[in-house]
Amino acid sequence: MIGEIPGIVAGAQFANRRALYDAGVHRALQKGIVGAAPTGAESIVLSGGYVDDEDNGDEIIYTGRGGRDVKTGRQIADQQFLAENKALVTSRLEGLPVRVIRGAEHNSPYSPQVGYRFDGLFWVEDHWRERGKDGFLVCRYKLVSKEARIEYDTNAPQQPRGPAARTHLSLLRIVRDTAVGKRVKALHDYACQICGVRLKTGAGSYAEAAHIRPLGRPHNGPDVTSNVLCLCPNHHVLFDYGVFCVANDLSLIGLPGRLRVSRKHTLDSSHLGYHRAMWGQ
Amino acid sequence: MIGEIPGIVAGAQFANRRALYDAGVHRALQKGIVGAAPTGAESIVLSGGYVDDEDNGDEIIYTGRGGRDVKTGRQIADQQFLAENKALVTSRLEGLPVRVIRGAEHNSPYSPQVGYRFDGLFWVEDHWRERGKDGFLVCRYKLVSKEARIEYDTNAPQQPRGPAARTHLSLLRIVRDTAVGKRVKALHDYACQICGVRLKTGAGSYAEAAHIRPLGRPHNGPDVTSNVLCLCPNHHVLFDYGVFCVANDLSLIGLPGRLRVSRKHTLDSSHLGYHRAMWGQ
Repeated sequence: MIGEIPGIVAGAQFANRRALYDAGVHRALQKGIVGAAPTGAESIVLSGGYVDDEDNGDEIIYTGRGGRDVKTGRQIADQQFLAENKALVTSRLEGLPVRVIRGAEHNSPYSPQVGYRFDGLFWVEDHWRERGKDGFLVCRYKLVSKEARIEYDTNAPQQPRGPAARTHLSLLRIVRDTAVGKRVKALHDYACQICGVRLKTGAGSYAEAAHIRPLGRPHNGPDVTSNVLCLCPNHHVLFDYGVFCVANDLSLIGLPGRLRVSRKHTLDSSHLGYHRAMWGQ
Repeated sequence: MIGEIPGIVAGAQFANRRALYDAGVHRALQKGIVGAAPTGAESIVLSGGYVDDEDNGDEIIYTGRGGRDVKTGRQIADQQFLAENKALVTSRLEGLPVRVIRGAEHNSPYSPQVGYRFDGLFWVEDHWRERGKDGFLVCRYKLVSKEARIEYDTNAPQQPRGPAARTHLSLLRIVRDTAVGKRVKALHDYACQICGVRLKTGAGSYAEAAHIRPLGRPHNGPDVTSNVLCLCPNHHVLFDYGVFCVANDLSLIGLPGRLRVSRKHTLDSSHLGYHRAMWGQ
């Protein structure tokens, strides 16, 4: 249930939490976050519960759950990155979208007049902890819409709002993933097939799926496990720039050594050959 | 002269190559590519010169220059990633935008009726060599508009056009850079300040600039060299997830060792402290 719900577009209105629940948009009647640590967050509701939330439209600074007094709603203990709070970190780690719903009680110019509104998919771009307005540590997240995530400004004069908020940004790299890529990373337990490195973070391991014959035009490589390698970001860059290729016997060309393999993961030599041909090998 | 020309918006029309030249949009009267290997490509003109070009609107498969017979226009030798052809690789390596101009003689539904049209900024997402229609190796580039670069599709059914062209893509990571970041990377000669690794590609070295106190809301870190580290992609991921922090004496917290420094690059300890506080250190 990650991503869009078929037939429900951004801007869809709902009378109450029950209607959101029944539509599958937010599958909990009370909780602000729906999700689990292993699979990521599905959706969040902004409904005025937390004094620390900030809403800038395409960019939301969201506060995790927990540590609040049930009567006063004030923070009385530190929050931890556990349960639903950890689910939002998993969403960041795996690049998964989160459905954002705003409620009328959410104190923001972006709130609906009445009820609840589904406001589309956002991505968790950052997470951290800080001391909230009530004096306790709170889990914080920066969620951004697709448009805001790609925001950049080339050759533009310095913007007045905030130091260096959008000064001369260029776009080095976008790393995407697919369900198939996720499967290949799991088969290798997130260890790089070149160097064996496994990047461990507080919320799980990070690796990147590299399509051997690239997806999309003009290569039109298939999104199947036999066309995907599990690589650390460093070796992903080097593979995409053709610094190394993989021979059909799985020895490396351009780097010493051999590809690390898993019994459950076989590669298609025609895709390896396609990548070699791209780089004159 | 990388990026947009002030006052000239996408869609602007030009009568001929001279008018493009005078406006600074494409600063050459004959060549299809303007740029140099050290600084990247400024602009390209699509004008029907190469039989191998493909134009899908937001996504262009472009052919490099060289190896053509001046009379027939046919390819008579292999192309190399040198000079302007290398400039387009630099643009990819540094995430720099390229101005795209289409001419009326360019054989595509996206061509203007007459003259030339500036069609905005594109990014080089891929480069490789392949055997062109005339039988010789040609340098090829995939250029994509901002919108196409971020294209993804979540929970969508398989698209009919091309295998897995946009199946269930999630967005793991976007790596941006600034002019300041580029300066810091140069100060360290693109070697990671944690592990010393320098990723060498055919077109130059690759490293990432990591803002210690993040840019943008809510952190509003400044874009100055004292707030930037030069890191390999692996250590950039670990730094952004708070797996390690840097103490004021430049020893590492969470990893063994110390930060590698350059005499010309001093860090602001208040930014290091901000990053540590984000991760409870």
